Amino acid sequence: MGYTAAPLEKLIEQFSQFPGIGRKGATRMAYQVLSMSDADAAALAEAIQNAHTRLHRCRVCQNYTEAELCPICSSAKRDRSTICVVETPRDVQAFERTREYHGLYHVLHGLISPMDGIGAEQLSVKELLARLGSGEVKEVIMAMNPTVEGEATAMYLAKLIKPLGIKTTRLAYGLPVGGSLEYTDETTLYRALSGRDEL
Amino acid sequence: MGYTAAPLEKLIEQFSQFPGIGRKGATRMAYQVLSMSDADAAALAEAIQNAHTRLHRCRVCQNYTEAELCPICSSAKRDRSTICVVETPRDVQAFERTREYHGLYHVLHGLISPMDGIGAEQLSVKELLARLGSGEVKEVIMAMNPTVEGEATAMYLAKLIKPLGIKTTRLAYGLPVGGSLEYTDETTLYRALSGRDEL
Repeated sequence: MGYTAAPLEKLIEQFSQFPGIGRKGATRMAYQVLSMSDADAAALAEAIQNAHTRLHRCRVCQNYTEAELCPICSSAKRDRSTICVVETPRDVQAFERTREYHGLYHVLHGLISPMDGIGAEQLSVKELLARLGSGEVKEVIMAMNPTVEGEATAMYLAKLIKPLGIKTTRLAYGLPVGGSLEYTDETTLYRALSGRDEL
Repeated sequence: MGYTAAPLEKLIEQFSQFPGIGRKGATRMAYQVLSMSDADAAALAEAIQNAHTRLHRCRVCQNYTEAELCPICSSAKRDRSTICVVETPRDVQAFERTREYHGLYHVLHGLISPMDGIGAEQLSVKELLARLGSGEVKEVIMAMNPTVEGEATAMYLAKLIKPLGIKTTRLAYGLPVGGSLEYTDETTLYRALSGRDEL
């Protein structure tokens, strides 16, 4: 019909590539950009460029950081004997919000998924193993999502790490706090039952 | 905690300003930007800048366009005697998708809303009235959303346009096609009843 101008169509396509944003949401976002002031649109474009050029992966844990080492890896207050292995940088943020974990992290940037053609070599597995050689690390916690890919990745890593004589654990399964037993799926309920703790 | 780097935080804030995108969605988008290639991030930033600098409002209908006149206003195939007045450019797209409307449009870029401090002078009402002087326009269709603000804006415009001797209509209210009578609210049902057509 030719009623969507080319630069607008291009912007809609760009926004559509984000997870959870469909054609409709992308269209709303694009029109929002058009209604911005010149300065605001420039600030948005600059924030994208800036984040991309100024942030890179921490040499140790592979989380995004401005410095060579991220604030967590370079902190003297963190317990260096424990590494919590997660899928994404967002998972690091989730753990930090609990304020209860004081060890280090390792970000895999994905999970092993043969269906999607993602193997261990595309993840930061090599970098994780390199951290375990010094004898400083006593425990590696597998903190992937409780999905098929998460399980498979945890199993794969455990098989590599256990022979090094390092304790390998994983997050407990069970009822979510505040959740309702009635609406809990059978698998979770079974896990909660078999992992029951003494009071 | 200092675990969100400043450029990342800034990008999250930028994405949060979009309608329908909360802190969580904005965070996902920001990390998506970080995982892009340099070229892809540059393309996204450029699309934003491009859309903003290359698109402006059509001199006649106020929809966004690259040229001075939008493709619809400059098309010889459109019926120039009818103007459909809408709130946003997205509404133009919605009508075009029906492929049943062949007249022109006028985009108000908002609705009159005293609660939000938006009066007629912030909308493109002046530009609409300027189009009605030539005698070419025979009908103006009010096609605002069926909300309080939409109604108020339609009434306000009708009061301005009727004295010019131009027919002023509005979209029909009624049951949505494919909708269920059982789940239709009373007001819609009443409107559908009072607007009933002979078979």
